[in-house]
Amino acid sequence: MLHLQSESATRWFEQVDQHLDEILIDHAHCERKAASTAMNFINAYAENRDLCREMKQIVEEELEHFEMVLDILEQRGIAFRRLAPGPYGKELNELVRSQEPDRAVDRLLVASLIEARSCERFSLLAEHVRPREPQLADFYAGLFESEARHHTTYVRLAEAFAPRDVVRERLNQLSACEAKIIATGSPLPRMHS
Amino acid sequence: MLHLQSESATRWFEQVDQHLDEILIDHAHCERKAASTAMNFINAYAENRDLCREMKQIVEEELEHFEMVLDILEQRGIAFRRLAPGPYGKELNELVRSQEPDRAVDRLLVASLIEARSCERFSLLAEHVRPREPQLADFYAGLFESEARHHTTYVRLAEAFAPRDVVRERLNQLSACEAKIIATGSPLPRMHS
Repeated sequence: MLHLQSESATRWFEQVDQHLDEILIDHAHCERKAASTAMNFINAYAENRDLCREMKQIVEEELEHFEMVLDILEQRGIAFRRLAPGPYGKELNELVRSQEPDRAVDRLLVASLIEARSCERFSLLAEHVRPREPQLADFYAGLFESEARHHTTYVRLAEAFAPRDVVRERLNQLSACEAKIIATGSPLPRMHS
Repeated sequence: MLHLQSESATRWFEQVDQHLDEILIDHAHCERKAASTAMNFINAYAENRDLCREMKQIVEEELEHFEMVLDILEQRGIAFRRLAPGPYGKELNELVRSQEPDRAVDRLLVASLIEARSCERFSLLAEHVRPREPQLADFYAGLFESEARHHTTYVRLAEAFAPRDVVRERLNQLSACEAKIIATGSPLPRMHS
């Protein structure tokens, strides 16, 4: 359902265990960036009413999550700060073709894959931290549903810019690239490292 | 209360009377751009919790207004489309100093002045169109309160980046520039022409 072609490596859990604070800070940035991405879609495709309606809801949900993560940081006494971004988003965005309507399809599918990977990782995180951090585990589990829904929304919206089978084929290609990028990972402990 | 140093010229009402459809389309873009501006503040000053909370609310309200204007366009059978922007926003943004924290102060005050001018124009528009368009007049009148509140919020947030008297003096300077820009106007019929 999430169109992912790999599962996260256990390597990532070592980063989580050693740098949970940094993962939480990065998570806040991820929510902020997800809201910003949805807003960028409104700006780029303002004439598409269906897209604008869906993006409005995603902006609102992601900003809500952003606030929730900031609350968790505050409760834990972790100062929110800028972080050098990992390579994940940049490498995915380099796959976006430049000519419309291909560009719209690719941007929407890249957004759909980021949501899918977040979804997979929230689910894994929830299980992983539950023994020692049950509240945090509940929080991660609670995000699973909305991220899965956002994934589906982005894939559906791409179908306004290309026929369904073309979108599915491109999703398979991009998903294979995403699996390679996530397998390579990054030494920076991040939600998508 | 709005810190404006001029009232809109009657010249503008001629543009409204001759091009109400285009003014409505531009209004939708203004709401979209106002949401986008608030999101940009979250991205630029993510560590400022107070700012992020306020911007979240402004993003949500402006996106709600955007949808409302799109509904009005739909009811009137007006196709939403891209418009060449008038010079107003660009000329105001050219006044923003490049070094922080001056940059933050100026960006916030420019945003505050755009909200103030929108507020003034909604109020004038409501009166102006009421005889022939009572529903539209109610809609414009309904936007007055939130735009006035956004103006105040932006001015208050600037005070996190500079002392209050410095902010007030800069607001006076920028407001004088805004009055000149709006007096010059633009041949393109726009919310801020």
